[in-house]
Amino acid sequence: MMVSLKLLRSTAPEALTAGCPSRVVLDHVTSKWGVLVLAALAEGTLRWGELRREVDGISEKMLASTLRTFEGDGLVHREAYPEIPPRVEYSLTARGRELCEAMSPLLTWVVDNADAVVAG
Amino acid sequence: MMVSLKLLRSTAPEALTAGCPSRVVLDHVTSKWGVLVLAALAEGTLRWGELRREVDGISEKMLASTLRTFEGDGLVHREAYPEIPPRVEYSLTARGRELCEAMSPLLTWVVDNADAVVAG
Repeated sequence: MMVSLKLLRSTAPEALTAGCPSRVVLDHVTSKWGVLVLAALAEGTLRWGELRREVDGISEKMLASTLRTFEGDGLVHREAYPEIPPRVEYSLTARGRELCEAMSPLLTWVVDNADAVVAG
Repeated sequence: MMVSLKLLRSTAPEALTAGCPSRVVLDHVTSKWGVLVLAALAEGTLRWGELRREVDGISEKMLASTLRTFEGDGLVHREAYPEIPPRVEYSLTARGRELCEAMSPLLTWVVDNADAVVAG
């Protein structure tokens, strides 16, 4: 089953038009690091340092900003433990897990087909 | 089935690490306009002007650059007809269609859940 913009707009006329909620959410998810941060958390709860290692190449600043966006979207849950040194853990919410399930075929396709695509 | 970075890397250790082919392809697909251009073409062959209207808000420059990247990736086919005025049509290749199928659950989820996500 292949979904097109036209098909999506046949039931939701505003779907993915400029400024509509679905365009905003698509931009968050497909931001430079969004997909990778979500896919890292798909494995389970991670601490800051673990998350940064999994998402190879992300800066502290971009990780912080991506996580803040996803917290605001209700996709990622942040839990801070009052310990010394402080411990902060991140996990997917139920909604975030749903999104990761919907993203899984894309990730699998990209990894399986990357060599062919790069070869042109 | 939820795919995580760790799971992908259990069979392809380099999967989505910085600089590896799958990271390059993911960056192309999830570029600012990539998903929308592919989803527009999922409907069928489109001319430049039709494509630009479907992908609401894209500039001429970004549409040209996104299409060039996808042509190079073997995802989009460009056909120029020697007519006056010149006619140029764009369509998905077989590989591009496969990618759009893999992207469909994500698009559907985004459109179905956008209001809830934006509400936080």
